[in-house]
Amino acid sequence: MSKNLTKREEDYSKWYNELVVKADLAENSGVRGCMVIKPYGYAIWEKMQAELDRMFKETGHSNAYFPLFVPKSMFEAEEKNAEGFAKECAIVTHYRLKNDPDKPGKLMVDPNAKLEEELIVRPTSEAIIWSTYKNWVQSYRDLPLLINQWANVVRWEMRTRLFLRTAEFLWQEGHTAHATKAEAIEESEKMMHVYADFAENFMAIPVIKGLKTETERFAGAEETYCIEALMQDGKALQAGTSHFLGQNFAKAFDVKFANQEGKQEHVWGTSWGVSTRLMGALVMTHSDDNGLVLPPNLAPTQVVIVPIFKTDEEFDSISIVASDLVAQFKRLGISVKFDNRTTQKPGFKFAEWELKGVPVRIAIGPKDLENGTFEIARRDTLTKEVIAKDGAVNYISDLLEQIQRDLFNRALDFRNTHVTEVNSFEEFKDVLENKAGFISAHWDGTPETEEKIKDLTKATIRCIPLDQKDEEGICVFSGNKSAGRVLFAKAY
Amino acid sequence: MSKNLTKREEDYSKWYNELVVKADLAENSGVRGCMVIKPYGYAIWEKMQAELDRMFKETGHSNAYFPLFVPKSMFEAEEKNAEGFAKECAIVTHYRLKNDPDKPGKLMVDPNAKLEEELIVRPTSEAIIWSTYKNWVQSYRDLPLLINQWANVVRWEMRTRLFLRTAEFLWQEGHTAHATKAEAIEESEKMMHVYADFAENFMAIPVIKGLKTETERFAGAEETYCIEALMQDGKALQAGTSHFLGQNFAKAFDVKFANQEGKQEHVWGTSWGVSTRLMGALVMTHSDDNGLVLPPNLAPTQVVIVPIFKTDEEFDSISIVASDLVAQFKRLGISVKFDNRTTQKPGFKFAEWELKGVPVRIAIGPKDLENGTFEIARRDTLTKEVIAKDGAVNYISDLLEQIQRDLFNRALDFRNTHVTEVNSFEEFKDVLENKAGFISAHWDGTPETEEKIKDLTKATIRCIPLDQKDEEGICVFSGNKSAGRVLFAKAY
Repeated sequence: MSKNLTKREEDYSKWYNELVVKADLAENSGVRGCMVIKPYGYAIWEKMQAELDRMFKETGHSNAYFPLFVPKSMFEAEEKNAEGFAKECAIVTHYRLKNDPDKPGKLMVDPNAKLEEELIVRPTSEAIIWSTYKNWVQSYRDLPLLINQWANVVRWEMRTRLFLRTAEFLWQEGHTAHATKAEAIEESEKMMHVYADFAENFMAIPVIKGLKTETERFAGAEETYCIEALMQDGKALQAGTSHFLGQNFAKAFDVKFANQEGKQEHVWGTSWGVSTRLMGALVMTHSDDNGLVLPPNLAPTQVVIVPIFKTDEEFDSISIVASDLVAQFKRLGISVKFDNRTTQKPGFKFAEWELKGVPVRIAIGPKDLENGTFEIARRDTLTKEVIAKDGAVNYISDLLEQIQRDLFNRALDFRNTHVTEVNSFEEFKDVLENKAGFISAHWDGTPETEEKIKDLTKATIRCIPLDQKDEEGICVFSGNKSAGRVLFAKAY
Repeated sequence: MSKNLTKREEDYSKWYNELVVKADLAENSGVRGCMVIKPYGYAIWEKMQAELDRMFKETGHSNAYFPLFVPKSMFEAEEKNAEGFAKECAIVTHYRLKNDPDKPGKLMVDPNAKLEEELIVRPTSEAIIWSTYKNWVQSYRDLPLLINQWANVVRWEMRTRLFLRTAEFLWQEGHTAHATKAEAIEESEKMMHVYADFAENFMAIPVIKGLKTETERFAGAEETYCIEALMQDGKALQAGTSHFLGQNFAKAFDVKFANQEGKQEHVWGTSWGVSTRLMGALVMTHSDDNGLVLPPNLAPTQVVIVPIFKTDEEFDSISIVASDLVAQFKRLGISVKFDNRTTQKPGFKFAEWELKGVPVRIAIGPKDLENGTFEIARRDTLTKEVIAKDGAVNYISDLLEQIQRDLFNRALDFRNTHVTEVNSFEEFKDVLENKAGFISAHWDGTPETEEKIKDLTKATIRCIPLDQKDEEGICVFSGNKSAGRVLFAKAY
C-alpha cells in the first residue's frame, strides 16, 4: 500500500483525482469521459441509493423504467429543453456493424443499416416520460403520478472528472404530474427538502436550500430549487436539484386531464435528481491528506479489526476475541471486517483502512488480551484511545453516531465561516481571491449583470437562498436596486 | 376495470401481450422495440433484483459499474463475441445536434460532431470489462475477481415482444476472473445453480439444468450452462445462462497474472446473466385467463383487504378491523393493502386484484363483523373459504407459503408430463405438433443435424441435461450413433 497522496494544500484538484483512484472508488475507462465505478465506490453508491429509495417510497413515489433512447422528433418537442441539451448528446444513427472488406478481422458501420430517425441517448428523460404520461392521464383521478427512475444518462461533456463530470453517469430522476400548480410546487419543494435531509443526515454535508436564477435554471423548467454544498477548497457544488416544470412538458406532449368539472386542463409537472456526483461531494467534504473519511452512515465497512501478533498462538487467541466482536457488531447491524490477512503487516493494514476511510479501527495485540482492552482509533480525528473490552461494542456503536454528528458539525462550521457578506465589487473580488466560499451579495436581478460578473470572476450565482432576511440594497456590480442578497461562488 | 382478456387457448400469444399491458407490467414505448416498465411491473423486478443481489453477495460477489459504450476497436477484439453481436448493435456516431437551417424549431445531427471512433451501445459487457481487468490483475493474489453489474443493454432485435425480446432490456451480468480453469468452471456451475435456486424457490418455476450445444453457445464462450423452463403453451424459455469463457477474453485483452511460481499465465473467465425476460417467464408459467398469478415470494402486494359495505357506519367498523389486520401483517413482514377506495364497488376491486395476481384476498362485510369471520380467496385456485378472525393472520401467513409450494408443484407436474422420449423422427414431429413441450431424443452431436432439424421443425436443442442416465443410442434424424439424449423444443 503506497499512499503517496498529494496534499490538499499543494494541489487540491490533484489530491482529489488521486484519492478517488487510490481508494478504489473509480477510475477512468478506455471510453472517453466515461468512468468505471469500482466495487468499493459502488458499495458507497449502493448505500446512498438504498437510503434515497427508502425516502422516495416513504413520500409516496414508485419506481419505473423508461427507454434509454429518445427519437429526435420527441427530443425536440420541448424546445427549451432540447436547446439546453442538444450540444452535448450522444446520437445513435446505425443499428448494425459488418465485416470491413478492406481490413480482415475488423468491423465497420453498415451503411445499409441507417436508422430512419436518429436516437438520442437520454441526457435526461422528461421527453420520453412525458410522451408516455400522455397515455396514462385522462382524468384528475389518474393524478398525481409520482414516479422515480434509477438510470444511466449521457451528456457529452468535453472536460470530465471522475464523479464530478462524466459523459455517462448514474442517477435517479423523479418525474411527477399533478392536477394543480400549487401541488406541483409543493412537490418540487418537498423533494428539495428530502435531498437536504439526505445530504445532512446521511452524507453529513450541510447544504443551503435555494432557487436558481433564470440563467442557471434547468432547461425547460419554470423554477429550479437546489441544494448547494461547500467543498474544502472553498468552491461550491450543486448537490441536487428539483424543478417545477409548470405546464411546459404537458403542453409540448399534449398531456391533458379532465378536472372535477369535466373540463380539459394541462397537467403540471416536476422533475428532480441526484447523481453519482454526490460521490465527489462526499470525498471533497470530509476527506484529508491521509485518504478518505467516510461518515458512518455511508461507510461500507464501519469498523475494522486489525490483529497485532508475532506467533500463531497469538493470532489464534486474538482471532477468538475478534470473532466474538464481529458477531456482536453484526447483531447491532454494524458492518465490520476482521482483517485476518497474514500476508500484510499491521502498519500496511492501518494505512490501507485509513486510505479507505473506515470510521473506527480496533487494534488487538497480546497486551490487550492480558489487560482486557482494545486500542481504538477514529479515522476522522486520527485520535486513539484504549478502552475496556467489556462494553466495547456499545461504546463503539455510540462512537459511530458521535462521528457522524462531528463530521456534520465540522463541515457546518467550515461552511458557516465561509459565507461572507460583501457590499462592493472590490470586496467581492478580494474575498473570492483570498478566502473563497460563498459570497453573499446584492444583485440587481438581471442576467446581464450575472453574466458580466461570471466573465470577470468565474463566480456564478449558486442560489437565491430560501432562508434569509428581507433586505433591500444596491447591486455590488451595477449599483442598481436589489431585492435581496444572493450567494455567489466558484463552483464545480 | 374491463378485463376482456383473450383466453389462453384461443390465442396464447395475444393473451400474453394483453395481460402484460392490462396488469400494468409494461407497455410499448414510442421508441422502436423499447418498452416502458410500469411501476407494478418494476416492483416485481425490484423484488427479483433484491433476492438475486443477496444471493450474489452471499456467494462472494461485489457490484460495480462499467461504461455503457464500447469503442469499436475494443468491441471487435474478441472476434467470435464481436461476430455474434455485430448484426444487432446500436452505434453512436455523433455527439451533438444543431439547429436545422431548413426547418425552424427542428434539430439535425451536426456533421462536424462526428466521433473519431464509433461507440457501440453495450449488447453485453465482456469487452469493456476485460479491457479493465487488464489493469486490475497482476498477480495470483489479485484473483479471483468476482464482480456483478446491474445494467441496461441493447440488442437491435427486429421482432420484439414485451419482456421476452426487447431492443433495450435490464439485466445483471456477472464477470469473474480466476487463476485456474477448474476454478472458473466451478464458478460457472455455481452460478447456474444459484439461478436454478432462484427460479425454483422464488419464481416457483421448475428448471432443467444443462449445457448448450456449440451452435447455441454464447459467442465467445467455451461452454454455456443454462436453465430451461417450460411455458404453459409447451414452448421452452431460456431463463438464465452462465458461461465458461476459457481464456478467450484474457487472450483478446491480454489479461495475465504471475502465478505462485512467478510465471505469467492468462486468466480464466466466466460471465453469467439473467434479465427482465424472467418477467415474461413468470407471467407465462403461472397466470390464467383471469389475469396474473404471482408467487407470494415475488408479489408486491401479498394480501389485499376489500371492505364490503353499504353505509358509512359499516365502512368505519370494517376499517377498524382492517387496520388492525394490516398492522399484524406488517409485523410479520407480509405486504398488505387495504383497498379503502370509496369510488369503486367490491366487484370491480375483486376483478382488479385478480388481474394483478395478488395471492390472497380478504373480504370483510357486516356479517363477518357479527360472526367474527373473514372470507378469504386464493388467487391461484380461485377458491374461497370463511375463516375465523382469531388466528387469521397466522393462517394466511402459512397459506402464502402453501401457495408458493403449490404453484411450484403445479408447474413441475406440467413440466414433467411434457418431457417426452421419442425414438424416431416421425414420433418427434408428432409430439412437437400435438403435444409440444420438451422432446428427449438421441442426436448425433453434429451442428448439421441440429440445423436440419431446426429448419424442418423450428425445434432447437434447448440443452444437454446435466442430470440424466447414460444411454447410447441412434440419432432420430441421421441414424448415426448418439452418446446420449438431448432436449429439443420450440422456444421463446
